[in-house]
Amino acid sequence: MLENFRIVLVGTLYSGNIGSVCRAMANFGLTDLALVAPQCVDGWADAAKLAVHADAILDQRHTFDTLDEALVDCTAVVGTTARLGLYRQHVRTPREVAPALHQLATNGKVALVFGREDNGLLNHEIARCTHLIRIPTHDEYVSLNIAQALLICAYEIFMANGSYEAPFEKSPPAHADHRLRLLQMWREMLLLVGFMYEEKADHMMQGIQRIFSRGALSVDDVNILMGVARQAEWAAKHLPRKEL
Amino acid sequence: MLENFRIVLVGTLYSGNIGSVCRAMANFGLTDLALVAPQCVDGWADAAKLAVHADAILDQRHTFDTLDEALVDCTAVVGTTARLGLYRQHVRTPREVAPALHQLATNGKVALVFGREDNGLLNHEIARCTHLIRIPTHDEYVSLNIAQALLICAYEIFMANGSYEAPFEKSPPAHADHRLRLLQMWREMLLLVGFMYEEKADHMMQGIQRIFSRGALSVDDVNILMGVARQAEWAAKHLPRKEL
Repeated sequence: MLENFRIVLVGTLYSGNIGSVCRAMANFGLTDLALVAPQCVDGWADAAKLAVHADAILDQRHTFDTLDEALVDCTAVVGTTARLGLYRQHVRTPREVAPALHQLATNGKVALVFGREDNGLLNHEIARCTHLIRIPTHDEYVSLNIAQALLICAYEIFMANGSYEAPFEKSPPAHADHRLRLLQMWREMLLLVGFMYEEKADHMMQGIQRIFSRGALSVDDVNILMGVARQAEWAAKHLPRKEL
Repeated sequence: MLENFRIVLVGTLYSGNIGSVCRAMANFGLTDLALVAPQCVDGWADAAKLAVHADAILDQRHTFDTLDEALVDCTAVVGTTARLGLYRQHVRTPREVAPALHQLATNGKVALVFGREDNGLLNHEIARCTHLIRIPTHDEYVSLNIAQALLICAYEIFMANGSYEAPFEKSPPAHADHRLRLLQMWREMLLLVGFMYEEKADHMMQGIQRIFSRGALSVDDVNILMGVARQAEWAAKHLPRKEL
């Protein structure tokens, strides 16, 4: 449903921010960009430069004179604000609203609206919004750049989309019996090389067991550690002896 | 515990990215910035410009010649990568690891390491990391700008702040230099016992490094594993030889 999200930028002053917004949209699978009365006081050169490989989104943007025109076909309108205060007490975080927005996007366009770099959204624009979000930030520096704010909103929408598949590790997690054989091999090896004596072995193996349990060992991991034990034993038995 | 997070930028090419990183750090309450061999092929002018009101972070940065120097006092080292593949199969998302990182930050420095704009982190730098993270993105445009990647990581750490109560472990997490000496000792031992040959040693040590990074090793853990290497070497050199 990512194609049903529309990013709406109102009165943007710097074209570089529009370019950065395009790149962030591409990173998180959004494609529909609407500009409302862009100012671009710095011309348009930075837009393409900062869009990097997301220039297709920039090229396919739609430009409107008023916010209402950009929202005509939208079922939900999500305003972003850095401020609290009057008209803004019902703000939520992007993480809180993302699942609901996905639900709304199943049968209509959902607009995410970002205001001017200096003044944000004005009260009559906030009044058009069905949802208001504010990104949690540190108290001492609450002001996010517009492209950064978009990035986090797009990221949260992407994360809530359920489409992300965790990277697949080639070697699967080792089974308990595999890990048990590993510990037995290490016990034998550590006794042989004189790391511990039989009467302390149970205690020492608890420490080794803790180390091997700090994360989930894969089959490859276990095989490597078995190889270490096997080879240390071999070396202790067969390498030429050095005199003390 | 936000003050225990260190942002480490390796070989950064553009000073504007360093400035944007400072601003994003300020937005999410991070203050400790370390630069490793910054290139700044564009000079330094953009750094202050893009830091906006976060110039205090920029001014208080520390610069190092090597990554190891920047990590000396770190108990956890979190590498960021946009790629999957060899040595990178155990990556997690920032959201997954953020609570564990807060736990680690309760008694030590936690480094988040970001690579070059063009090439990311190199394999020998990845090998220094105790954790690897990759930000979920849309398949068609996976490459995030370095300041954008930092922004999302900092945001996830900020969002997870206060969400985790640290279970108390007697032995504190090991520092990076301690872990580095461990790997050196194991390398020597594994060569001596014939587990690997010199020409394959770098590759094999990546596997060992991955195993030792599946969780945060404590000082006790590292000392035990050092003892194993020491004793296996001793045994290989001094135990009576058995005839084949």
